[in-house]
Amino acid sequence: MFKINDNYQKLPGSYLFSTIAKKVSAYSAANPDKQIIRLGIGDVTQPIAPAIIDAMHKAVDEMGHAETFHGYAPDLGYDFLRNAIVANDYKARGCDISADEVFVSDGAKSDSGNIQEIFAQDNKIAVCDPVYPVYVDSNVMAGRTGTYDADTQMWSDVIYMPCTSDNNFVPELPKETPDVIYLCLPNNPTGTTITKSQLQEWVDYANKVGAVIIYDAAYEAYISEDDVAHSIYECEGAKTCAIELRSFSKNAGFTGVRLGFTVVPKELKCGDVSLNAMWARRHGTKFNGAPYIVQRAGEAVYSDAGKAQLKEQVGYYMKNAKAIKEGLTKAGYTVFGGVNAPYIWLKTPDQMSSWDFFDYLLENANVVGTPGSGFGPSGEGYFRLTAFGTYENTLAAMERIQTL
Amino acid sequence: MFKINDNYQKLPGSYLFSTIAKKVSAYSAANPDKQIIRLGIGDVTQPIAPAIIDAMHKAVDEMGHAETFHGYAPDLGYDFLRNAIVANDYKARGCDISADEVFVSDGAKSDSGNIQEIFAQDNKIAVCDPVYPVYVDSNVMAGRTGTYDADTQMWSDVIYMPCTSDNNFVPELPKETPDVIYLCLPNNPTGTTITKSQLQEWVDYANKVGAVIIYDAAYEAYISEDDVAHSIYECEGAKTCAIELRSFSKNAGFTGVRLGFTVVPKELKCGDVSLNAMWARRHGTKFNGAPYIVQRAGEAVYSDAGKAQLKEQVGYYMKNAKAIKEGLTKAGYTVFGGVNAPYIWLKTPDQMSSWDFFDYLLENANVVGTPGSGFGPSGEGYFRLTAFGTYENTLAAMERIQTL
Repeated sequence: MFKINDNYQKLPGSYLFSTIAKKVSAYSAANPDKQIIRLGIGDVTQPIAPAIIDAMHKAVDEMGHAETFHGYAPDLGYDFLRNAIVANDYKARGCDISADEVFVSDGAKSDSGNIQEIFAQDNKIAVCDPVYPVYVDSNVMAGRTGTYDADTQMWSDVIYMPCTSDNNFVPELPKETPDVIYLCLPNNPTGTTITKSQLQEWVDYANKVGAVIIYDAAYEAYISEDDVAHSIYECEGAKTCAIELRSFSKNAGFTGVRLGFTVVPKELKCGDVSLNAMWARRHGTKFNGAPYIVQRAGEAVYSDAGKAQLKEQVGYYMKNAKAIKEGLTKAGYTVFGGVNAPYIWLKTPDQMSSWDFFDYLLENANVVGTPGSGFGPSGEGYFRLTAFGTYENTLAAMERIQTL
Repeated sequence: MFKINDNYQKLPGSYLFSTIAKKVSAYSAANPDKQIIRLGIGDVTQPIAPAIIDAMHKAVDEMGHAETFHGYAPDLGYDFLRNAIVANDYKARGCDISADEVFVSDGAKSDSGNIQEIFAQDNKIAVCDPVYPVYVDSNVMAGRTGTYDADTQMWSDVIYMPCTSDNNFVPELPKETPDVIYLCLPNNPTGTTITKSQLQEWVDYANKVGAVIIYDAAYEAYISEDDVAHSIYECEGAKTCAIELRSFSKNAGFTGVRLGFTVVPKELKCGDVSLNAMWARRHGTKFNGAPYIVQRAGEAVYSDAGKAQLKEQVGYYMKNAKAIKEGLTKAGYTVFGGVNAPYIWLKTPDQMSSWDFFDYLLENANVVGTPGSGFGPSGEGYFRLTAFGTYENTLAAMERIQTL
């Protein structure tokens, strides 16, 4: 008789955003007249930029003619996209990354869920707390996290690095040595980040103890301050200890287009074994490339017109971030983030729990946010709002919250 | 110090099609004047059908306007596509499958590589031999296959079911009881298949011994004979023992568009645990949906115009299959398949090994095929040609082979 992977049974409850969706849809069904404003899930609302739309139409036309039809893509991505990534995201910032270190994928969620596969099962992971749930859940599914304590909401074999207002949301080097360290900077969910010199400390630490950093830079386009690194490879020595995950979802609105990439430097090795080769083998065996049309869309992100249009789009969302930050401050909330990231992290009022505040906000302001505790125990008492709504909705949400 | 998943190190050599690509490109570089005809990798050559191109243009336009923009897709797929799949692929064939049993993905290769994750590590898999390499390799990476014997080219913990001309390519029920059985029917690579009543025996067996069948039906559109099942759910009892993988790559030419789906019936359980819920959790955690544009393309596959155009496209490839079958027979080869599948499986002449015949054909006819031994030890002495080339190239290849 077959048996299941019983690690799945250890996962507590369902995925955070599924739970939110269910709650919102139940409230909606019971209150069909209420206009709900969604500032919860980090989904964008602005349409795809014209330069990218043009590129997709052109690629669709190519697919319709035998001479220009494209079948299976190269497993690791088309050269036109990998070269554009290298030139714009790396060389332009002085990072020595080459095209064969870039692996194009269908999105950073897939990569951040799958990357743990290339590590040994008894490796110990360290995560910031709060944290994007996929890092932990994908390791739970792989049997790497030990047992779950429902009281503390912690896994016995995971190293948690609390990020709260007490340490200004800067994770401290863990006392116990981890094997794999997940860092998302600028951070989801807190919207905060660290300086380049603080990041350099992490790189030095990882090289010293022999750990790998999984660096999720999905929000780098929102960085506004000069002393913040856009890529971990701006730090010296990162190529021997870091894998970087990138997404087109937030800088170009590709949440429904699906494109991302992962950089695995060739110098990153375990003994003689290159992690670049391992990830290539994983791609070659379990993935068949991102769609041609979507890779052409990605290329257009780096065109002059694309860059100009996306700068405006990012600016639009950061205007929202500013409006949320100011609106909440005016309403008496303590807020963090929103300067180098499209997320605002607020302290719930009156010691309310994160989920109580979720319900309170949904029922009284018809505004949907994300409970901080959904991202980990240190998120309890916090709440996330995203800047990805429309400007009008963002202002309306702030007005509603101010009159609560 | 971090450690790697050392199961990856057990994988012998590189992925079959990467090896072929390297050999062909080395030959090409050394012989730039030679016109190579590629009948190796199962990639299609006909452009995407007009009805699908129209649907994609429309979807691209929607993505360019805020009112019709689509962000994150539902994890498991848009209802419009899941409903079309259910109506056309299942209800129309009398199979009682509902939309919430259909999981839309970026392709059957991802699904066939990932599906093993939901099973216990000590489950024993059974595969046909020869077999699509992804089934075995993804289980190797998960540490489920024991040790590899380079002489026999077999894994100690895998049950092999030889399919050769001796048993007319019909796999026999294994002597040792497996937990998970991979069946690809119509078969890749042999191009052969089994009757519906033979498939019913497999379903009855799986239910009896408590095994799960992973049924890869990627080639069902090529079935021309009446007594062959298009879906395993045409067999009685399949919903308690079978997961079905489907692809749009071969019926609609989506190798570069990327779309597939997997059916996990709610009745398929291990004790109280529903595999449907497990797969939903896997999707929710490690995948963010197929692109909106691509899902609209999938919907158009089921439109009246789409169906008519794709019937013609499949017919075009099956005309190639017939030409290959007849051409090779005329040249004195013993051939199999090509009636219910776009692959022709031939016996190499003069006891040549599969790779020797690969080199011979590449060098003397400039025709690329796939060595049978690349699909498993029982593929030794066989060779695969695909019908996915153009008709002109297919005829030209046959002429070249006939004059060897």
